[in-house]
Amino acid sequence: MATIFFCSSSSTILVRSCSSMRESHQPHNKQHLNLKINGTSRSPIKVDSLSQTAEAAVLSINGQRQNIPTKKQLVDPYRQGLIVEGGVGYRQTVVIRSYEVGPDKTATLESILNLLQETALNHVWMSGLLSDGFGATHGMMRNNLIWVVSRMQVLIDYYPIWGEVVEIDTWVGASGKNGMRRDWLIRSQATGLVFARATSTWVMMNRKTRRLSKIPEEVRVELSPWFIEKQAIMEDSHEKIVKLSKEAKYMNSDLKPKRSDLDMNYHVNNVKYVRWMLETIPDQILESHQLSGITLEYRRECGRSDEVQSLCEPEEDEILSDVVKQEYNTKNLFNGFSLASEIINGGGVLGCLEQRPIRYTHLLQAKGEKQDEEIVRGRTVWKRKLPSMPFSTQ
Amino acid sequence: MATIFFCSSSSTILVRSCSSMRESHQPHNKQHLNLKINGTSRSPIKVDSLSQTAEAAVLSINGQRQNIPTKKQLVDPYRQGLIVEGGVGYRQTVVIRSYEVGPDKTATLESILNLLQETALNHVWMSGLLSDGFGATHGMMRNNLIWVVSRMQVLIDYYPIWGEVVEIDTWVGASGKNGMRRDWLIRSQATGLVFARATSTWVMMNRKTRRLSKIPEEVRVELSPWFIEKQAIMEDSHEKIVKLSKEAKYMNSDLKPKRSDLDMNYHVNNVKYVRWMLETIPDQILESHQLSGITLEYRRECGRSDEVQSLCEPEEDEILSDVVKQEYNTKNLFNGFSLASEIINGGGVLGCLEQRPIRYTHLLQAKGEKQDEEIVRGRTVWKRKLPSMPFSTQ
Repeated sequence: MATIFFCSSSSTILVRSCSSMRESHQPHNKQHLNLKINGTSRSPIKVDSLSQTAEAAVLSINGQRQNIPTKKQLVDPYRQGLIVEGGVGYRQTVVIRSYEVGPDKTATLESILNLLQETALNHVWMSGLLSDGFGATHGMMRNNLIWVVSRMQVLIDYYPIWGEVVEIDTWVGASGKNGMRRDWLIRSQATGLVFARATSTWVMMNRKTRRLSKIPEEVRVELSPWFIEKQAIMEDSHEKIVKLSKEAKYMNSDLKPKRSDLDMNYHVNNVKYVRWMLETIPDQILESHQLSGITLEYRRECGRSDEVQSLCEPEEDEILSDVVKQEYNTKNLFNGFSLASEIINGGGVLGCLEQRPIRYTHLLQAKGEKQDEEIVRGRTVWKRKLPSMPFSTQ
Repeated sequence: MATIFFCSSSSTILVRSCSSMRESHQPHNKQHLNLKINGTSRSPIKVDSLSQTAEAAVLSINGQRQNIPTKKQLVDPYRQGLIVEGGVGYRQTVVIRSYEVGPDKTATLESILNLLQETALNHVWMSGLLSDGFGATHGMMRNNLIWVVSRMQVLIDYYPIWGEVVEIDTWVGASGKNGMRRDWLIRSQATGLVFARATSTWVMMNRKTRRLSKIPEEVRVELSPWFIEKQAIMEDSHEKIVKLSKEAKYMNSDLKPKRSDLDMNYHVNNVKYVRWMLETIPDQILESHQLSGITLEYRRECGRSDEVQSLCEPEEDEILSDVVKQEYNTKNLFNGFSLASEIINGGGVLGCLEQRPIRYTHLLQAKGEKQDEEIVRGRTVWKRKLPSMPFSTQ
């Protein structure tokens, strides 16, 4: 297949060499660290019992990050990060901040996507193999390779609220012969309840030729010790997202990236893509529903000068005549994953219809001189908001 | 003076009752806490040596925050927060995240404003007096009062870079007879270098009548034990910001709040105001300069249905004919604060002209049926970007 996937700008990935990777750490459920905090103004948090502490106190020289770890770190007290999963996964504890929530006081999708990016980058930071800010290994740098994301899927069961303490786990695995999968799991720190799961697929591109590349042997040696099989989301059928035409039901045109939408690569930030997509969803759906799943297929990077169109098409009629079809669709979409029980609890056919998720297909494309060029295809799934959250136990 | 200031939505403030406020804490430069972190999935960070630990593990019941502290807390290990300043100030250690920086890899102004809001709210959280999410005390709730911000000023000497560990201090003081001042200081955790200072003024408003209120005695009793004299920014002359007319040099019209711009009060978020302001600044200035100061005077809240205009006027001609005038202006603006030495170091008159800050006056107004209504007046000051950062010592 000749499809070329392009750089999704700021989202980045794992990476870590080190043949002695499983060396001096303890099993992840037995780590036990004694931290000391001094309340004085200059005293950092000190870790007594483990020497491999991420020196997060980055100093800048000419605006460049310094002190990037050159060895694997097991704990980052500043970011509340730990290496877990037998030494290859990363876990960060995060409190949902006041500006990360929307009017309903729950974390916005954008905040969740930001936190996925952040924890991925911190995983790389801890690996000791980071050669630049975007997750490239030393081997990749020598081969002039960068990471590009081709696909991302996020399933959100519950949105954490303002002030909630969440644990974000992230890890990587192989994806086919020349790809890498990065997964995430977001849980309540207090109850262990899973809020969200995410998976993404990454490939390598030559920075100069902009062509996809196989993984060179020296890079495979760096990466493969970090790969594990575990998956946050069971492989779905990778149901194809169709390409929308300009006859799509909803369309926002003339979208132009602003300076504040650009990330460190001078590309439009991932999160902006999602904002452009969601702004086409009708207000009444946004009032009554919440996004329970989003899939993004990246095709091409979007730069400052692009003029973007956001197209959106509901995938089904508002009311389904056939409950069987509906059950088939929801099960198919979620792999049986949490909706089936809701349908059972929802009170029969009417409950089914009321709680049936709504699906939209999306397309962001850039106005080209000859023809429009796809940037991202997307699918979003929306569940009716619940009157009370089922995780409300103390 | 009859000017009425309106609610600036999400920014919020301190507050804390408690007559026994200076009770059981230790002097702030002698706090010494032993924290234990268990790397297992459900184990929270435990504080051994101090019982007054913020229970940040908020659980939600029907989407509402639970476990809001009812007593003063001295440490919040999840947010890396501490009570300092002899028991009345709050300090939080924060790592600048990947999505909080712009293309130049330094924290954006918006991120800094977000962190000011966040630390202010966490200060209130720690106070034990929080009755709702927006910083109102129990006494204020009984009197149906809310906080509204009337003025905010931020001076930024250096922008922390991605990964930098910063300490944000915040505290409050009296402002006139019926106002409160909240200040902030952002420092490098590693070097102590001050990145930014900020101050803000708050008054109380009756939630129902929307009229400003005096501080009732029971609220004064709650607040005043927290007030200290210290100021992050020396009182300036509160130089009046003139109201711009529609003949202003730059104007963006038909700005409409989007769903994602709304905060928990369904008002346009403060940060969006600033984004609308800065988008009128010419690109070449944004390329060559960085914002070193911003002052905002709030006049009226902005809701979802408002249509907003952003006006902007440079305050001086591009080239000053009179160096004396220029020196007078910069000194006047910054209270001698850091620019005077730069002018001395800048290499005489030419250096002066090159490094002279550029000032803009701003106005955001909403289209009214009878006349346009002011939302915020603003002033921004821009310094030429330095080729290398002076805090680049290791």
